[in-house]
Amino acid sequence: MARMKTNPGNFFEDFTVGQVIDHATPRTVTEGDRALYGAIYPTRFAVPSSAEFAASVGLADQERGHPVEELVGFHVAFGKTVPDVSLNAVANLGYAECRFHVPVVPGDTLRTRSEVIGLKENSNGRTGVVWVRSTATNQRGEVAIDWARWVMVHKRSTESPAPTTVVPDLAPAVEAADLVVPAGLDFSSYDDVAAGSPHRLGDYEVGERIDHVDGVTLTDAEHMMATRLWQNTAKVHFTTDARPDGRRLVYGGHVISLARALSFNGLANAQLVAAINAGAHVAPAFADDTVHAWSEVLDTATLEAPGVGALRLRLVATRGRDESMTLRSEDGTYADGVLLDLDYWALIPR
Amino acid sequence: MARMKTNPGNFFEDFTVGQVIDHATPRTVTEGDRALYGAIYPTRFAVPSSAEFAASVGLADQERGHPVEELVGFHVAFGKTVPDVSLNAVANLGYAECRFHVPVVPGDTLRTRSEVIGLKENSNGRTGVVWVRSTATNQRGEVAIDWARWVMVHKRSTESPAPTTVVPDLAPAVEAADLVVPAGLDFSSYDDVAAGSPHRLGDYEVGERIDHVDGVTLTDAEHMMATRLWQNTAKVHFTTDARPDGRRLVYGGHVISLARALSFNGLANAQLVAAINAGAHVAPAFADDTVHAWSEVLDTATLEAPGVGALRLRLVATRGRDESMTLRSEDGTYADGVLLDLDYWALIPR
Amino acid sequence: MARMKTNPGNFFEDFTVGQVIDHATPRTVTEGDRALYGAIYPTRFAVPSSAEFAASVGLADQERGHPVEELVGFHVAFGKTVPDVSLNAVANLGYAECRFHVPVVPGDTLRTRSEVIGLKENSNGRTGVVWVRSTATNQRGEVAIDWARWVMVHKRSTESPAPTTVVPDLAPAVEAADLVVPAGLDFSSYDDVAAGSPHRLGDYEVGERIDHVDGVTLTDAEHMMATRLWQNTAKVHFTTDARPDGRRLVYGGHVISLARALSFNGLANAQLVAAINAGAHVAPAFADDTVHAWSEVLDTATLEAPGVGALRLRLVATRGRDESMTLRSEDGTYADGVLLDLDYWALIPR
Repeated sequence: MARMKTNPGNFFEDFTVGQVIDHATPRTVTEGDRALYGAIYPTRFAVPSSAEFAASVGLADQERGHPVEELVGFHVAFGKTVPDVSLNAVANLGYAECRFHVPVVPGDTLRTRSEVIGLKENSNGRTGVVWVRSTATNQRGEVAIDWARWVMVHKRSTESPAPTTVVPDLAPAVEAADLVVPAGLDFSSYDDVAAGSPHRLGDYEVGERIDHVDGVTLTDAEHMMATRLWQNTAKVHFTTDARPDGRRLVYGGHVISLARALSFNGLANAQLVAAINAGAHVAPAFADDTVHAWSEVLDTATLEAPGVGALRLRLVATRGRDESMTLRSEDGTYADGVLLDLDYWALIPR
Repeated sequence: MARMKTNPGNFFEDFTVGQVIDHATPRTVTEGDRALYGAIYPTRFAVPSSAEFAASVGLADQERGHPVEELVGFHVAFGKTVPDVSLNAVANLGYAECRFHVPVVPGDTLRTRSEVIGLKENSNGRTGVVWVRSTATNQRGEVAIDWARWVMVHKRSTESPAPTTVVPDLAPAVEAADLVVPAGLDFSSYDDVAAGSPHRLGDYEVGERIDHVDGVTLTDAEHMMATRLWQNTAKVHFTTDARPDGRRLVYGGHVISLARALSFNGLANAQLVAAINAGAHVAPAFADDTVHAWSEVLDTATLEAPGVGALRLRLVATRGRDESMTLRSEDGTYADGVLLDLDYWALIPR
Repeated sequence: MARMKTNPGNFFEDFTVGQVIDHATPRTVTEGDRALYGAIYPTRFAVPSSAEFAASVGLADQERGHPVEELVGFHVAFGKTVPDVSLNAVANLGYAECRFHVPVVPGDTLRTRSEVIGLKENSNGRTGVVWVRSTATNQRGEVAIDWARWVMVHKRSTESPAPTTVVPDLAPAVEAADLVVPAGLDFSSYDDVAAGSPHRLGDYEVGERIDHVDGVTLTDAEHMMATRLWQNTAKVHFTTDARPDGRRLVYGGHVISLARALSFNGLANAQLVAAINAGAHVAPAFADDTVHAWSEVLDTATLEAPGVGALRLRLVATRGRDESMTLRSEDGTYADGVLLDLDYWALIPR
């Protein structure tokens, strides 16, 4: 009976298409989160760094302060889904259609709801793939972030019958026209000097690759603190007794935030993450790995908001610095050392 | 003369029954403390996590925000007493009659005053036991927390005469009727889904034990950061040159907070710590220890506040996971691996 | 072309006397910074610790809160200069004439501007010394901190001609009469008990040395988190692949803050840093070094503000505890184990 009170997580059999899950627990974002994010990731983007700069581009709210990094909201919202969706996951297979709507500012309380949008049992009969669409809303009921994600989950029993296969139709990327520009955003009087770079939308060419030069060697204390901030409590991140090799697996989102922060050096004006089109955690990361990053410009777009453009970027994190910026090996698999392959849209001044 | 300006701490001879000590330094609790607490401990209790949830149970103050974890206040208040009470302590022997009164919210400034309520020299003539009752008040002079504690302290000289022995009469546990329920607390419209568990007071049976499953492997960086937050500067926690084995001793309160946070998985609705009846730091903890926890239900009570009940819990932290949840060995001593044995009351919806 | 978008830093040839550099990126200081500072450094000074205490000495602003440690402002302001001034530095040679003007409180946004005030090529033709005077202002345009600093920087090419040598005339120390006392500061009703020490200006004698007793063993996680907070992204602090020995060099300012915090034990009433006269990072520090500190009283002064005096202190940080408090070896070089030799003014009640 005691065991029944702890969360065993859901198994493949527990999911049905159309099922809606309200995730515990709502969480209020504060200036403390902003400070910790800046202590754990080498971020310098001017909007989250400076209330004054944020106000100069129309994003500061006198009462409520200025936006935190979009990824703070993403990690908080995502963390809520773990106990219900991926506690028994074998692997996080992908993300799609992630869009950032109303900016998250200190004082906002986020809650997350997920709907199961797809199921497919694997031929081995032991696991299945679950697709969910999750939506994070603030205390005013406004959508802050929504995204689709699919994970491979263990079945409770190989005896259980397979459900009808439903594979959702997910866009390979969010269309530029579908990007949400935060209300009030105005880059027409953008201060390049304060932001740290003169390079705007027109300075980036599709196909261009940028080596972000800087790097960070991971420590267990830092990735655990970051992962706890998001209330993501998956055991593999926190204990040396959860894996045969005795190592603590770094939360994939930690590598995303680290790579995004490193990308400041070369993409300082790619101020706001507007959408995540796709993401693959190619290899696990562990303490003592030194993470570097490079980006490739995949697309550019001009948006309607004053002075606002968008860059579609491939952000690649690697173990050790790869100055050759090689994504693929000759055999078509990922090059050795690639940890993360993320496809996202960022808002940048034209 | 130079040495005279640094704090040598008090020795057994420096204490007299009835003596009152006002501890330095007052400290203002902020949202930064809440965020750091959440980064260092895997806590997910909905009241401190969400201003919105706290308001739904009557605990959010529009101006001043919502309560931080009760243990944040406890550690801050306790830390103040260390330089005066336990800098020369051989051992922390116990706690009793700890009650949480007015909740601590960001912006509150806590100061702590202690009164010596007992003294007993040990037969060896080298040490003695000092009992103090400490009270933490906020900037409005309201009592936030009070508790009794006793420690074994070195004598300055074996020559000093023994004081008259005074052993205070301390209750084995706070009576349910004496628990303080925060003003305005109302669990009658409690949201189980947001809180993360359907299990309320009536679902727990006296004698029931709950294995909290999750664990955390300790790091020096994290326990030092936590301990500094509380301005507890006892050398043994921070330097490798303070102990023969070169290890930094983890502050006992760190294990308490870690175990309490781990207990969310099985006790998610045990929202507020109302009292600490007793506590024993059975064995020291160090970096690389993997801490797990289990709880035993000792008692249950129905309180007058709307929808509010109380669970008296034994919270046991262990080095490594003890699925057998064994507190005692056959010889009556603590089972191997037990780090902490804490007896406390938590408020939970009926 | 990709590389051109990342910051290569400036080389000796890029500096000209009179040149003004506006540094990216402005940064808003918050309560989160205060909490992290207190988690990373064992500070207990009453003014930054307690809004109530700060108000009692005239420094709390109802709307804007109470001052953070002066060194929080210094590190934030200093960090901004690194990408432009010292990314290609061989060595940080010194500081001078650093004065703290308007206190920094949560909500303040700091930006830093530097002017090149001196240049001197070294005889080797490969490096040169650059002197800059930097000024940090808040969002109201008030000067928060200003200081002079000189660094040895690589030349891009040994072929480049040497510039005219200009060596600025910098004061060996800020005169007591030039110290800035924060508006409203009044120590006339100073609470020694709350502050943690009865020792005031008159209790300190010139030449007196104080061993601060306590110590801290460094960890990579903590010094990296601190250094990131200041948005100082110099690679050597963060990666094991930047130095042949694979060690992460601890940011010099980390040792300054650590030593200043340790000095509380003996200098608890030296509440506010008013000026930094000079500073030498004598030896590099690394994780696992145990840092201790001692101070020497260099001068004392009585200022006009009510109850306010000043202590000029030499703050010395050492690897391992040096109870002999030896600064120089017999051969006149620094004694073995000395990490930092800092000369500063602190405000203390008379």
